[in-house]
Amino acid sequence: MGYEELKIEGRNPVLEAFRSGKTIDKLFVQDGCQDGPIRTILREARKQDTIVRFVTKERLDQLSETRRHQGVIAIAAAYTYATVEDILEKAAQKGEDPFIFILDGIEDPHNLGAMIRTANLCGAHGVIIPKHRAVGLTGVVARTSAGAINYTPVAKVANLGQTVEQLKKAGLWFVCADMDGEVMYRLNLKGPIGLIIGSEGEGVGRLLKEKCDFTAAIPMKGDIDSLNASVAAGVLAYEIVRQRMM
Amino acid sequence: MGYEELKIEGRNPVLEAFRSGKTIDKLFVQDGCQDGPIRTILREARKQDTIVRFVTKERLDQLSETRRHQGVIAIAAAYTYATVEDILEKAAQKGEDPFIFILDGIEDPHNLGAMIRTANLCGAHGVIIPKHRAVGLTGVVARTSAGAINYTPVAKVANLGQTVEQLKKAGLWFVCADMDGEVMYRLNLKGPIGLIIGSEGEGVGRLLKEKCDFTAAIPMKGDIDSLNASVAAGVLAYEIVRQRMM
Repeated sequence: MGYEELKIEGRNPVLEAFRSGKTIDKLFVQDGCQDGPIRTILREARKQDTIVRFVTKERLDQLSETRRHQGVIAIAAAYTYATVEDILEKAAQKGEDPFIFILDGIEDPHNLGAMIRTANLCGAHGVIIPKHRAVGLTGVVARTSAGAINYTPVAKVANLGQTVEQLKKAGLWFVCADMDGEVMYRLNLKGPIGLIIGSEGEGVGRLLKEKCDFTAAIPMKGDIDSLNASVAAGVLAYEIVRQRMM
Repeated sequence: MGYEELKIEGRNPVLEAFRSGKTIDKLFVQDGCQDGPIRTILREARKQDTIVRFVTKERLDQLSETRRHQGVIAIAAAYTYATVEDILEKAAQKGEDPFIFILDGIEDPHNLGAMIRTANLCGAHGVIIPKHRAVGLTGVVARTSAGAINYTPVAKVANLGQTVEQLKKAGLWFVCADMDGEVMYRLNLKGPIGLIIGSEGEGVGRLLKEKCDFTAAIPMKGDIDSLNASVAAGVLAYEIVRQRMM
């Protein structure tokens, strides 16, 4: 895997990156910098809803590889994010009902990588992750995905709830995993579907859960609480595969 | 999780540990030590088929916490291993057909931990791992198992092939995961069953594969090779759960 997180340093290069449409995962700005160029960069960052962190000069110096950061460093993913439309388009091209993973707040890069890997192999058309409070396409994610990141489009959106609403208009049904749901084998999971998986600690957020058409439970026969998040995603995804194959 | 790898140092303590039946994961012996007590310890190690490493005095000094190793340090798991009989007994107590995970050469402790977690939740009665060329019950495994290690018995055996033969006599059928097999949804996976999962790199060993009654394939619709080993184990295990619930 040739993945490297891309560090862009200095005012002109960072501004250039924003204007070229590159996805910036995170922007580090030196505390107290208020001049024109920095304000222009912050305006671009706001437009694209980029996460901004104000840090000390010492922290920036530490992050810097060129030692010429001029008060600003942007972290870009070497992998480009897809759009939700790209994902729907991929399903259309294959002549299949859309099948999309929506991952709510996965913070562990190993889990995200394993889920992208599963999404690829179970025939899902793409993965949607939130911009905030979740890991992006980092080097560890790329490596753990075992190459799937090169094939399965991953879109990053500002608001998962809005995206779900948009996809409902496109005809998708939504199912989320939750212990209180109906046993998954008894649900009808055919047709255009979005599978919503929450983080290990928190599960699927309440607002998102309320938007789901079904809540699917994986039968739990043991002594502990829950499966590893990427195992749970795999088990549910393959129940969808099974029903689609019947 | 209170797990700590237990280091036992010095000739008498190590010999005592072997004789009390404690499972020793690994024995470190100083190069060139040939006296009576060391020979007695090595004889015990051979009896129990313990992995022995001959190392320099410097390496032993490094490993030592007490600084009184006398040329020998044993590493014991703080978690005690179960026996294959314990696992069958657990199934009998529950009045259920035995359902056992057999893990062939899993080297990644995160994968082993996730699989023990899955085994617990899908209602398997135990996990069997090989003594050689595989990770044991380390601290990382305990943590990744999310507590399952306290409930699901894990047995460690010298020869998986022999154990499979022994379990066949007890009425178990064996299924292994392999891409060349029959699609898992079309197999009959009810009844007393052993699920054999191989390592990420190697898959299930040839000799073990030949002992299997079925080879189950997880449908692969993507561009890359294979699922993460613990996700594959989860998907197959839950197909067994589904069939048992029908």
